[in-house]
Amino acid sequence: MSSTLPAPILPESFASVEGVKPLLHLYTAGTPNGRKPSILLEELHAAYPESKELVYDVYSLKFSDNDQKKPEFLKINPNGRIPALVDDNVAGGHNVWESASILLWLTEKYDKENKFWFDKAEDKSDALSWIFFAHGGVGPMQGQANHFFRYAPEKIPYGIKRYQDETSRLYSVLEDRLSDPKSGGWLAGGKYSVADINVFPWVNGHTWAGVETTPFPALEKWLEAINARPAVKKGLNVPPSPAPPKNKEEEEKRAEEARAWIMKGVEEKK
Amino acid sequence: MSSTLPAPILPESFASVEGVKPLLHLYTAGTPNGRKPSILLEELHAAYPESKELVYDVYSLKFSDNDQKKPEFLKINPNGRIPALVDDNVAGGHNVWESASILLWLTEKYDKENKFWFDKAEDKSDALSWIFFAHGGVGPMQGQANHFFRYAPEKIPYGIKRYQDETSRLYSVLEDRLSDPKSGGWLAGGKYSVADINVFPWVNGHTWAGVETTPFPALEKWLEAINARPAVKKGLNVPPSPAPPKNKEEEEKRAEEARAWIMKGVEEKK
Repeated sequence: MSSTLPAPILPESFASVEGVKPLLHLYTAGTPNGRKPSILLEELHAAYPESKELVYDVYSLKFSDNDQKKPEFLKINPNGRIPALVDDNVAGGHNVWESASILLWLTEKYDKENKFWFDKAEDKSDALSWIFFAHGGVGPMQGQANHFFRYAPEKIPYGIKRYQDETSRLYSVLEDRLSDPKSGGWLAGGKYSVADINVFPWVNGHTWAGVETTPFPALEKWLEAINARPAVKKGLNVPPSPAPPKNKEEEEKRAEEARAWIMKGVEEKK
Repeated sequence: MSSTLPAPILPESFASVEGVKPLLHLYTAGTPNGRKPSILLEELHAAYPESKELVYDVYSLKFSDNDQKKPEFLKINPNGRIPALVDDNVAGGHNVWESASILLWLTEKYDKENKFWFDKAEDKSDALSWIFFAHGGVGPMQGQANHFFRYAPEKIPYGIKRYQDETSRLYSVLEDRLSDPKSGGWLAGGKYSVADINVFPWVNGHTWAGVETTPFPALEKWLEAINARPAVKKGLNVPPSPAPPKNKEEEEKRAEEARAWIMKGVEEKK
């Protein structure tokens, strides 16, 4: 196994940008947290096509090679988790880690017209309440549902039920918000924003956690509206992802592979 | 059981402030997340003693009465969790929920000299990375350790070990940061800040989760330094808390009481 990270790649959206050196470096993988910054970067690129500062390259980290624990990456994110961003538009470089922290950095610095953010302090604060709700609730709880439902080496019904129920309850809170006519169908400030981008990839991956969205029609409508955006389609394919599993057998095969890496990690820690 | 919330109380720090109507209303309880905003409010009061806007009262919510799910509270926090803040210094009132969102609102609005926050964009961003690390990592993972170690009706060794190990790993990330001479012993920007306040009450409650801090000397030094601050002492006593359990038997009795409320909640959901 190599001790260094894989070489960076240029996402398709920038393949035709010639002679511009990428100064944003995204370290990521094809997971819900990993997709948040690539979606926002593609949205920002679409909204500000002239901005050279937004050209980025991608280090596609492999969990199977334990890339996220290599010294080169730990210098950027001391927690050893994806995603992370190095911004070389800042003299000396600035490291940002934790998916939501990356979204806020990019927004504050590059969304000059607040197309995905807000002017009013109260709207910003509302957006932050929804961002922390997702970062402390939907993400970790759905992540635990994934673990007990897909990866855990023991089948523990208590764990599966606990986290699937809680994820579903959190979806019901999103549903109440999105179905309120005053919301305009978005989480904060009556428009599509970073608050939506921050939780979208999790809800979009509900099947993997074994959680249904059918009881939540406003949430499903919101999912559909976001999935239809061209920048979101591009962002979801950074790094390029394999086609979704076609059937239960393929699903189980992928979970099996992930279990193998997870158990290797557990063994190495001992 | 009453359908309304308990009447608000004035924290001791404002008992002598006469003729000022509190316009900040904190809805909280004696938990790690619940203590974050009261610590910052007491710090702000100490730093800006003349500011009448910082006078706050406290709705001490009782989980045993399911106060956090009462309609009066759900209008403030749709997620039905403590803490939440209503800021009536803003015309029409502004609701903030999620502990870290409350910290950021109070800081942006009332910490005019950035005594607990930062001037530079890069320092703010570093602080946010640590804030999200705590909000998505230490809080939820230590919360799950509490659940499996103290509250779960079944004893599930896999769950206890998984979350205690992960909490301990997260503490080791804090330790690496705090023991780095460049950090000055604080998480962000070389000084005590909201980034520290945001994770302190969790680490301070490590015993309840069955996680040790002895392997982490820099973290223990940091704990001690924060615990020594007069504002922190006051904030930890809002709402007034019972003395910590004196022995294993008292600890077990408290966990037993908590289990009873949790199981009642589970039964009511069915």
